[in-house]
Amino acid sequence: MTQQLRIIPLGGLGEVGKNMIALVYDEAILIVDAGNMFPENDMLGIDMVIPDFGYLRDKVSQVVGIIITHGHEDHVGALPYVLREINAPVYATPLTCGLIEAKLEQHTLPVEPEIHTVRAGDTVKLGPFEVELFAVNHSIPDNVGLAIATPLGTVVHSGDFKFDYSPVHGQPADFATLARLGSRGVLALLSDSTNAESPGFTPSERSVEPAFDEIFRTAQGRIIVASFASLLSRIQQVVDCAARWERKIAFAGRSMLESVEIAKSLGYLSMPEGIEIDLAAVDRLAPHEVVVMATGSQGEPQSALARMAAGRYKMLKIQPGDTVVHSAQIIPGNEELAHRTINKLLQRGAEVIYGEVAAVHVSGHASQEEQKLLLSLLKPKYFIPIHGELRMLHAHARTAERIGIPAENIFTVENGHIIAIDAEGARVTERVPGGYVFVDGASVGEVGPAVMREREALGRDGVVVVVAQLDEDGNVIGRPEVSCRGFVFVRESTELLDGACQKASEVLSRQQNGHERAALENGLKKALEAYFYSETKRHPSILPLVLQAEGVRAGD
Amino acid sequence: MTQQLRIIPLGGLGEVGKNMIALVYDEAILIVDAGNMFPENDMLGIDMVIPDFGYLRDKVSQVVGIIITHGHEDHVGALPYVLREINAPVYATPLTCGLIEAKLEQHTLPVEPEIHTVRAGDTVKLGPFEVELFAVNHSIPDNVGLAIATPLGTVVHSGDFKFDYSPVHGQPADFATLARLGSRGVLALLSDSTNAESPGFTPSERSVEPAFDEIFRTAQGRIIVASFASLLSRIQQVVDCAARWERKIAFAGRSMLESVEIAKSLGYLSMPEGIEIDLAAVDRLAPHEVVVMATGSQGEPQSALARMAAGRYKMLKIQPGDTVVHSAQIIPGNEELAHRTINKLLQRGAEVIYGEVAAVHVSGHASQEEQKLLLSLLKPKYFIPIHGELRMLHAHARTAERIGIPAENIFTVENGHIIAIDAEGARVTERVPGGYVFVDGASVGEVGPAVMREREALGRDGVVVVVAQLDEDGNVIGRPEVSCRGFVFVRESTELLDGACQKASEVLSRQQNGHERAALENGLKKALEAYFYSETKRHPSILPLVLQAEGVRAGD
Repeated sequence: MTQQLRIIPLGGLGEVGKNMIALVYDEAILIVDAGNMFPENDMLGIDMVIPDFGYLRDKVSQVVGIIITHGHEDHVGALPYVLREINAPVYATPLTCGLIEAKLEQHTLPVEPEIHTVRAGDTVKLGPFEVELFAVNHSIPDNVGLAIATPLGTVVHSGDFKFDYSPVHGQPADFATLARLGSRGVLALLSDSTNAESPGFTPSERSVEPAFDEIFRTAQGRIIVASFASLLSRIQQVVDCAARWERKIAFAGRSMLESVEIAKSLGYLSMPEGIEIDLAAVDRLAPHEVVVMATGSQGEPQSALARMAAGRYKMLKIQPGDTVVHSAQIIPGNEELAHRTINKLLQRGAEVIYGEVAAVHVSGHASQEEQKLLLSLLKPKYFIPIHGELRMLHAHARTAERIGIPAENIFTVENGHIIAIDAEGARVTERVPGGYVFVDGASVGEVGPAVMREREALGRDGVVVVVAQLDEDGNVIGRPEVSCRGFVFVRESTELLDGACQKASEVLSRQQNGHERAALENGLKKALEAYFYSETKRHPSILPLVLQAEGVRAGD
Repeated sequence: MTQQLRIIPLGGLGEVGKNMIALVYDEAILIVDAGNMFPENDMLGIDMVIPDFGYLRDKVSQVVGIIITHGHEDHVGALPYVLREINAPVYATPLTCGLIEAKLEQHTLPVEPEIHTVRAGDTVKLGPFEVELFAVNHSIPDNVGLAIATPLGTVVHSGDFKFDYSPVHGQPADFATLARLGSRGVLALLSDSTNAESPGFTPSERSVEPAFDEIFRTAQGRIIVASFASLLSRIQQVVDCAARWERKIAFAGRSMLESVEIAKSLGYLSMPEGIEIDLAAVDRLAPHEVVVMATGSQGEPQSALARMAAGRYKMLKIQPGDTVVHSAQIIPGNEELAHRTINKLLQRGAEVIYGEVAAVHVSGHASQEEQKLLLSLLKPKYFIPIHGELRMLHAHARTAERIGIPAENIFTVENGHIIAIDAEGARVTERVPGGYVFVDGASVGEVGPAVMREREALGRDGVVVVVAQLDEDGNVIGRPEVSCRGFVFVRESTELLDGACQKASEVLSRQQNGHERAALENGLKKALEAYFYSETKRHPSILPLVLQAEGVRAGD
């Protein structure tokens, strides 16, 4: 058998979030990232979505390592679930390791995980893979891309990246290494497509500072800045602004407090002595002396900002004079909740500054010109756009074509499509599972499409339960009972529901004696579906229950 | 009592859609627009949202007229529901009347409505109101704004507007009338805020033509253009493009066919002889000879485009070589479904051109500079931003302040807040209902917050039904039965559900004899809630049913 390298995208290709890619050479498997994603609006009741890594389940012993490119949830959030099943060493930079360790404390794992701290510039040998980490910019410090040397050539994984010549944290991206990799030859590039639809260059993280300074200069009252807990560069900028404009800073929201603690302890957040105060101390200061940094930029109902907007946050009540700054990208699908939060804050009299009205946020991802720069530095033979919905992957592919990569060397695929590279060339081979695994309460992967369809139907039109009792001879006892939830307002619908009882009685009287329970239940279901549709033009889920107890006989 | 004019926003202030405003002078009420809106993502199962016009219900005889500014759904869609209760004459321009009549055909009204065709330039006297209609541009022909003369002064309602110096249909906005109104003095301006966050000028409808020509020039296969059925200017442009590039045009989607028919019959769509073909005839032509215009730009699951994307549209199967053009604004909240449709079309091998990658759509609403121009032409004493979420209204208010309208003369309010104007000045007075009325199947307004909360809970975690039987003495018959829907996958959860039966039995055995049904049911509910939360960390809705039949006695 000829040598073959297989690239298996398990997450992040065809969606925004839950990034996870496996590289296979010989029997050795290298995993890059293990992220989660926000559930989409119609994934009812789901807490979190993680990659379907079932393909690796019977190959657990072949996994030589898991490399995490940076500490954002969409790259690290599924790691506890992966480590439950795959006990492989994890490699990440110091801040990323800090965030991983905090995350793992909330989970019980069968085996203590082996976590190795590595740094940009380091090379790690994992089976047949020699992985060199190089610095690229993003909205979190200690972010790296990977140059993965394999016997067939070097595969470069961009991680999440942008080129920032004046980053808030660390150095500009490591152009020297990128140029060296390019001049030695790159077999394949896997590159971040999040902003593939945006022309031009993404501005530097620094570019938000004038807008922030203007806000701090003019705000008369309290300032509340909402962002991601993991957007550490923004947190640093707000801290710096607070210092410049002589305000104290407090943090709100569990994950915000946690990531600030980790970043401080590892030296990734520089905080002037005495500037940080407890949220409870905010009320003891004059409004113009304080800034609060809070979670909730996506309008998540349990977040600090959403609770402030709804008046349900005890520690901080929004009042006229407050200025709220929404300083984060709204993730696709979260627009409605995020905008609703902004509207509610306005209702409470706050001034709200957000992306559409001021330059208070800048993306952490490369735009088209940066994507071209990376492609031009590395000159890869094969190109695989990663990280993004299919439309973004396609846009990235078009960009690559425009700067001369032949269309047949570009692989625009979704999760689960294996790309095999060998001496003959590269091609898409079989498809393995690469879909969603739902985390719902304590269950992981147990809620599947059948249950989701039921939830959708229940949420749309509610449920009607019809219960009938039979005695041991199959005679109907009493009248069937009809009860409903989420369908109609019961108190105003007695006539409708009485009619349903009547229908159910008719079904039972027709089908009495000798009928099986299943057939009776089916008859009730059909009759009530038809009845409710004709009366209401709606389709509630009908749950029929026919009970038959031994030793019971109808009176008279 | 001093003369007073009251402006009562019943829809469109604090939301995008379902526009409806009432003006009250003396006892006379004038209604402007009666639109519907798309349900938001968490309005589960709701078909349509219409304004709550309950405030008018006991004043029906005072309504002197209903004026509809143009034929878009968010201005006309609730009219059948309003006319069911308010039998007042309707005034609208010819195309708008055509669309209204088609809509009313689908509804049964208690009284034949009285519909009057009027034109831009006309003045209609309705009680104390003298309403002059003037032309403004939008993405549908025959769109008007209103100058409503009252004894206290003139109120101008912008309708939906933009200033288009080269419109696809009709003439540029009527600047002469606007200037005349301004020079005579405007008491109050109510103006469209949809794009209040967008700086600059909205480009002309014509500006999409180069992009369309480029697509028609280069596309090798079929072209499918998705837009709103009511976006008649876009339909005209695609027809013109088809003529220029020698393609036949077919229409897909019920509402598209309907609005094309109406526009043709009233002379608002000029279609070269022989260019239109039936959708069924598309397959008989070569791919490069055809363009299809379809509904579904918002990803609505039952629309033509969404069904094509899902492979569920019999008349047209998407194939590689097809070019799909998404030429419409995505309404806030619809992003996820619309983008999902685009991704699925890409999956099927189509090329997809959409707003982010080419200039194939332009807004029908004024941007900030146009809003300033209208304000400058009219120089209103009072300003009330309308049509938009609160954040848009606020942005519009900021714009008005910047060009010199005093903050105290600007009323940024949401639906239901009455603005009263008299000789003393203007102020916000009481608040009347101005919320949502849900249309759900055949019911209007019957599904309220309680039912919506139940649906939300059902959709999130599903439902568990527990049924127990008692004999006439209150003895438990048999074992309680537990059944669920949308909670767990039943076949893999027998242990969990058996445990629930066990819990239920324990509750019944503790509480037997002499207990009320309600207390027993409550006991079952509490016990199972606790049980399921401890086992699964989830909160399914528990529906307990305790049946007790007279004349039945447990055997033994």
